[in-house]
Amino acid sequence: MEFTISQESHQCSGRLGEMTLPHGKVQTPAFMPVGTQGAVKTIGSEDLEALGYELILCNTYHLSLRPGENLVESLGGLHRFMSWDRPILTDSGGYQVMSLSKYRKITDDGVTFQSHLDGNTVHLTPERSIEIQRKLGVDISMALDVCPAYSATEKEVREAMDRTHAWAPRCLEAAGENQAVFGIVQGGVHPDFRAESAEVITGMPFAGFAVGGVSVGEPTDMQYPVVQTTAPLLPADRPRYLMGVGHPKDIIHAVKNGIDMFDCVLPTRTARHHGLYTMNGIVNVLNQKWEGHNGPVDPESVFPATARYSAAYMRHLFKAAEPLGARIATLHNLAFYARLMHDIRDALSKNAWPELEKKYENA
Amino acid sequence: MEFTISQESHQCSGRLGEMTLPHGKVQTPAFMPVGTQGAVKTIGSEDLEALGYELILCNTYHLSLRPGENLVESLGGLHRFMSWDRPILTDSGGYQVMSLSKYRKITDDGVTFQSHLDGNTVHLTPERSIEIQRKLGVDISMALDVCPAYSATEKEVREAMDRTHAWAPRCLEAAGENQAVFGIVQGGVHPDFRAESAEVITGMPFAGFAVGGVSVGEPTDMQYPVVQTTAPLLPADRPRYLMGVGHPKDIIHAVKNGIDMFDCVLPTRTARHHGLYTMNGIVNVLNQKWEGHNGPVDPESVFPATARYSAAYMRHLFKAAEPLGARIATLHNLAFYARLMHDIRDALSKNAWPELEKKYENA
Repeated sequence: MEFTISQESHQCSGRLGEMTLPHGKVQTPAFMPVGTQGAVKTIGSEDLEALGYELILCNTYHLSLRPGENLVESLGGLHRFMSWDRPILTDSGGYQVMSLSKYRKITDDGVTFQSHLDGNTVHLTPERSIEIQRKLGVDISMALDVCPAYSATEKEVREAMDRTHAWAPRCLEAAGENQAVFGIVQGGVHPDFRAESAEVITGMPFAGFAVGGVSVGEPTDMQYPVVQTTAPLLPADRPRYLMGVGHPKDIIHAVKNGIDMFDCVLPTRTARHHGLYTMNGIVNVLNQKWEGHNGPVDPESVFPATARYSAAYMRHLFKAAEPLGARIATLHNLAFYARLMHDIRDALSKNAWPELEKKYENA
Repeated sequence: MEFTISQESHQCSGRLGEMTLPHGKVQTPAFMPVGTQGAVKTIGSEDLEALGYELILCNTYHLSLRPGENLVESLGGLHRFMSWDRPILTDSGGYQVMSLSKYRKITDDGVTFQSHLDGNTVHLTPERSIEIQRKLGVDISMALDVCPAYSATEKEVREAMDRTHAWAPRCLEAAGENQAVFGIVQGGVHPDFRAESAEVITGMPFAGFAVGGVSVGEPTDMQYPVVQTTAPLLPADRPRYLMGVGHPKDIIHAVKNGIDMFDCVLPTRTARHHGLYTMNGIVNVLNQKWEGHNGPVDPESVFPATARYSAAYMRHLFKAAEPLGARIATLHNLAFYARLMHDIRDALSKNAWPELEKKYENA
C-alpha cells in the first residue's frame, strides 16, 4: 500500500492524505462503517457505494467462525463474497476474543476461547489471524493483539502489552508478500506504557499503526490523553488508526491530534436503537415529541433515501417494529458520518479547523 | 377513478387496462405489494419506485390501531406519511378481524373485536371503515365485508355473505364525494352463493369489484373454480380484484379468467423465510446446496440490487441472522413479481398467452 499526505493543517496536527490499496484509493481522514459478519447491518453494498464510503471494516473473528475463511477464499475472497469492490480492512479478532467469548486462555502461543456461536473451542495465534485475513483477501490486515478491558489491573495491562509486542513480529513474519499489516499499540491509560508500546511497535516495519485498547469502557476524559500522547509517537509517514472510536466529537479531537482512520459501531448500533445523529446531538425518535413532526428529524440531512421520511413516520416504524426503521436510521447516521468526514477533510484543506469545531460543537 | 381497457386477449378472458387514480395511472393486470403497517417490510418507497410498482396495498385494520387514522390525516394522509406518491389501496379490515383478533362479535351494526396490540375493545362498522380509509386519503377503499375462514360451515358462509350484502350500501353511502370504493363478493366455495353474491354486489354502483373470501386456507383446486365462475359475473367495464392471491401460477390462472388486480404477502413473507422465487419454483437459500454457489440463486434476475449477490452470500446472511438477507430476498421476489406482471401484460398485448403459460409453467 501507498500513503501520501497532501496537506498538513496549520492549525492543528491534522493531515489530509490518501491511501492507495489493491481495491482503490481512500481519502483520509476516513471513517469505516462496521460490517461485522460481512454486511453492515440492514444495508447493502449498493447503499455503501451511494453513501460514498471508500473503506469498510469486517471482523476476522466472526467471519472465521461463520462462514469460514476457507469458504470465502474458495469463492474469490471477501470482496466478491460481499459484492463490494472497494477496500476492506479486517480487525484481528483480539477485541472480540476479549468482548464476546465466555472463556478464554491466553498463552505465549496464542489465545484459546469458546466460540460464541456453538461453544466450540477455537485456538487463535498471530500466524492464524494473519492467515485468515490473507484468505479473506482484504486490503489491510491488523496484527493480533491482546486487548484488555478498562477494568484490567495495571499488571494485566502490562502483560497484555508485552504479549502484543511478542506477537507483533510473528504477524509480520506470517504476512503474505503483498499483505499490508498494521501494528497495534497497547498500554491502556498509562502514558509510560503507551510510550513504551509505541516505541516497540513502531520499530517494526508495519504498513500503518493503530492505537488499540481504547473504547473498552473508559470514560472519554481518560481516552483523550491516550490519543494526545500516543498519536505523535506514531510515524508521520504512515496511516494512524484509532480503533473503535467514536462519537463525532471524539473523531474531531483525534483528527486534530493527527489520527487518519476510524471505525465504530456507534452510528449503526445507535440507529437500531432509534437514535439519529444531528448537529444538535443524538435524537431518540421514539420520543413522544416526534409523534406529529412532519419533517425529517434532521433538517440538514441531504441523503435522498432518508431525508424524504418524516420523524413521525420514523417513530411509527420503530413503534410498529418495522425493519425499515432501522434501515432508514442506519442510512441516515452513516450519511451523517460521511458528511462529518467530508467536512473534516474540507476544513483541513482550507485551514478552517476552528470553524469545523464550531460547526460540530453540539453534535 | 377511470378504468379503460385497451385490449382484450383473443386467447383467453384476460384484458389489458389502465386505471387513472388521484395519485397516478396503474397498468393492469397489476400486482400490489403489501405494506401492512404503512411499509413493505424491509424496503422503502424509493425501492418500490425502483421496482416499478404503481400501486400498493396497506391495511386499514393495522393503521387505524397504530398510528391511528387521525394522526395520519393530520400529517397530510398516508401518501405523505409513507413518502409514496403513487396510488394506494387499503383493505377494509374485514380479513384481519377474521385472522388476527382473538375475540370478535359480529352484529348487524358491525364487528366488535379485541385489538391484537393491546387487547382493547374496538368497534368497526361499515361507515367507520370507509371513514378511516377516507382519512388515510387512499386512492381505492374497500367495502367492509365479513370474510369467513375456509373452515366455516355453509350456514356461516351464508350469514357472512348476507351481512356483507347488507353492509355494502352503507359503505357506498358513507363514501366521500371522490372516494372510489370497491365492493366485495363473498360466498365461499359454493357456486350458487357466489352467483347470488355477484348479482347483489354488482347491482350497486361500486368503482370496482373484488372476489373476497379466497386465500383463506382452501386448497388451490377449490380456489380455481371460484375464480372461473365468479370473474365472468363481474362487470367487464370495472376493475376486477382477486384478494389475497397468490402464487405466480394462481395469478396467471386468474388473469386468464379476466382478473385485473392482485395483492399477496407471499413474495414478501416468503422472502423473510429465505425463499426466493425463480422460474423453477421457490428456492430455499438456506439449503446446504447453495453454500458454495458463487452466482445468484436466480440467474435470470436482472434487478441490480439483488443480482449482484451470490447464493452463497445470501445463505450466509440468513444463517448469520443479518437483516440484509430478508431485504435482498424481498427485493428479489418483488422484482420477480414485477417481471411476472410485465410478462403477463406483454403476452396479452401480443396475443402470446400460451407462450406466457409455458414460460412460467415451473415457477
